[in-house]
Amino acid sequence: MQFIGRQFMEKTRYLHLTPSDQQMGETPPPLEKPYPHDGIRIRLQPADQVFLPEHNLLDLIESRRSIRTYSQKALTQKELAYLLWSTQGIMDSRAPYFTLRTVPSAGGRHACETYLLINRVEGLTPGLYRYLAFSHELLEIDTVSGITDNVMAACLGQPFVRSSAVTFIWSCIIYRMSWRYSERAYRLVHLDAGHICQNLYLAGEEIGCGTCAIGAFDDEEMARIIGADGVEEFVIYLATVGKKKK
Amino acid sequence: MQFIGRQFMEKTRYLHLTPSDQQMGETPPPLEKPYPHDGIRIRLQPADQVFLPEHNLLDLIESRRSIRTYSQKALTQKELAYLLWSTQGIMDSRAPYFTLRTVPSAGGRHACETYLLINRVEGLTPGLYRYLAFSHELLEIDTVSGITDNVMAACLGQPFVRSSAVTFIWSCIIYRMSWRYSERAYRLVHLDAGHICQNLYLAGEEIGCGTCAIGAFDDEEMARIIGADGVEEFVIYLATVGKKKK
Repeated sequence: MQFIGRQFMEKTRYLHLTPSDQQMGETPPPLEKPYPHDGIRIRLQPADQVFLPEHNLLDLIESRRSIRTYSQKALTQKELAYLLWSTQGIMDSRAPYFTLRTVPSAGGRHACETYLLINRVEGLTPGLYRYLAFSHELLEIDTVSGITDNVMAACLGQPFVRSSAVTFIWSCIIYRMSWRYSERAYRLVHLDAGHICQNLYLAGEEIGCGTCAIGAFDDEEMARIIGADGVEEFVIYLATVGKKKK
Repeated sequence: MQFIGRQFMEKTRYLHLTPSDQQMGETPPPLEKPYPHDGIRIRLQPADQVFLPEHNLLDLIESRRSIRTYSQKALTQKELAYLLWSTQGIMDSRAPYFTLRTVPSAGGRHACETYLLINRVEGLTPGLYRYLAFSHELLEIDTVSGITDNVMAACLGQPFVRSSAVTFIWSCIIYRMSWRYSERAYRLVHLDAGHICQNLYLAGEEIGCGTCAIGAFDDEEMARIIGADGVEEFVIYLATVGKKKK
């Protein structure tokens, strides 16, 4: 279909929006995707336990680049915890209405979830994990099937997925946002994913990591990998991270 | 129309994309919107001339909030220059193919333009301006018609537009991105606007400013205010900035 983008922008004007479920008095959906409570969870350290040098923000902003080659050095769990906290950490919550996180989100709805393809983090078996933002933990999802090649293939073969220490995979549970904003939610969740990814770039830069955002991926295949249906929950953005080469 | 968002996500899968104009051998469009060279332009100072304390990035990230009330203090031109540079400054350019800026963008296409509603910046007449990223200048657009109320009305009456020192208005020239990415460009430009806005939040935080992103606005009216057609160039995101109250 041609011009779907133009049509999307036109039909998500306020003029054309149907009343949101919030306006219709519906109960808000959960602020975190449910997970099996008997799953393997790994407690993460507080972000402030990472060694944090002081910088000018401007230096970080100016030295940031999209980096696609990484050293073989693993990330520590502390560093991973810092990156997760900086991108989605929950500072405060008024469940089920909103969370205040380390990034902004329209109405505090924060419709994103963070999955991780872990290749090289000290003490963690490589595999697929999820960040549990409310408890600041990792949830193990799949450490047996060797999914790195699948994620790389779903990223249209971009090889730095394989060489990354960690690849962040952000999904979106659209009803968490559309409950309040109706169809305009599809704009807002992309803006939110941009906020998140920018913090990953800067936090990575601070701890000597390079980052590269990935917007080119096979939506169906990426959804399948994280166990989402690709419609109610879909992958919205990815970014690879790894220690910079000296 | 119901489900336009779902349809948009479906039809912008790689599977459904038509070949981009780049793939068809078309010449890329300009990386900056043309402007009248006899217009009034104001040279901006380099961003590194702002007083910049050293911080932990984490402190900036954690102390950031969406702030909707501001002191009456004006921003200096240096501070404004710093915010503009941190959000869209051009570090390097390979025109007409890409620019490297202080934020990432898919393919370096950087399809956004920055307009400013200036209410209180030292030495500048209130009005509408544009940031010329290539020359790091401001272009005066309209300082006579008192457009603050119009912008506030177009932001569905959100009153902090009027009390802000500056409101950033980001537009998107979609062909700059779709030339390379076809209809998927509409996803990518929203991700980009998110990167930009996050840097504004953090850079603002560093210089004692509060920021509040605005995703709820009347698209047609906002396009009219900046002189865009709302289709080839449309407003994608806004954010108010002002000095924090003590």
